[in-house]
Amino acid sequence: MKPEIRILGIDDAPFDKFKGGKTKLIGAFFRGGRLLDGILSTEITVDGNDATDKIISMVKKSKFYTQIRAILLNGIAVGGFNVIDIKKLNQKTKIPVIIVIRNNPDVKRIKEILIKLRKKSKIRYLENAGKIYKSGAIYTQFAGTSKKKAEEILKISTIHAHVPEPLRVAHLIASGVTYGESRGKS
Amino acid sequence: MKPEIRILGIDDAPFDKFKGGKTKLIGAFFRGGRLLDGILSTEITVDGNDATDKIISMVKKSKFYTQIRAILLNGIAVGGFNVIDIKKLNQKTKIPVIIVIRNNPDVKRIKEILIKLRKKSKIRYLENAGKIYKSGAIYTQFAGTSKKKAEEILKISTIHAHVPEPLRVAHLIASGVTYGESRGKS
Repeated sequence: MKPEIRILGIDDAPFDKFKGGKTKLIGAFFRGGRLLDGILSTEITVDGNDATDKIISMVKKSKFYTQIRAILLNGIAVGGFNVIDIKKLNQKTKIPVIIVIRNNPDVKRIKEILIKLRKKSKIRYLENAGKIYKSGAIYTQFAGTSKKKAEEILKISTIHAHVPEPLRVAHLIASGVTYGESRGKS
Repeated sequence: MKPEIRILGIDDAPFDKFKGGKTKLIGAFFRGGRLLDGILSTEITVDGNDATDKIISMVKKSKFYTQIRAILLNGIAVGGFNVIDIKKLNQKTKIPVIIVIRNNPDVKRIKEILIKLRKKSKIRYLENAGKIYKSGAIYTQFAGTSKKKAEEILKISTIHAHVPEPLRVAHLIASGVTYGESRGKS
């Protein structure tokens, strides 16, 4: 795998969970882990069900579309409980999708919350995301690639700490644009 | 000078010049030319007179304030004719300010436009910015530093083409967040 492989990292902007409404998604397009080459953005509904389609559309209309070799996500959900169907995202874009999870998620508990919130239909997206693998200090799920290739992509793009650069930078931007100053590490 | 010197690059978001209103400023906080460490943002008035004070306030309230060793600007004006007084910006923040200009500006013509737009008072900001120096492929003006130090800072932070990374990245973000996809190189 080339160290300059093109990777898109996507993270959501902070939002007020009591207000609902819309929040931004930021996509940071990198050559490997070093060079930020472009920024994408779109808007999704907080706790809504539009994240998968909004990401597909953002990616497919981008001038970088044909270059992107992997889409990295910071967890399976954005904007609260707007759960991403990574199987569909992979099928519609033909790009491997890798979820990076920093703490081993309690899937049983997430399912219970979704049932309580009457968002039971989203449980199938959790199932579509497949097995959760431990990979060094983080956990991953993926679609359209293998564990070996996913780990190679994460290795190439991780420069600082445990967060791949495309996700670290997408997070800084989403947070900095919303709050006036970026917070946290990812 | 340390290669990891902390530099803030500031650029404005695109806006509709016929609509006026507000536009965002994005600040990209870098360690040297390589590592993006934080994002700042604020809003200014298109063609207004608040850019200098808004930048001073954005910088001084940032957690990075005491670390920033240079502020880079992409031209002397943001949001159309919101001209920045770099002398005041330097005095209030105690941080050297460097303007990067890609084409030798026709200062006489800019002054004529400001007079036509009844923004004559801003001419003094142009004068406060001091002499315009040619520096390799670009032009610079600065406050609170020397030509030698300014050139060293630009050299450390320029990795791709002629645009220092903090400005290249601030531009990508400002443009990508506004349009849904970044455009141009800076």
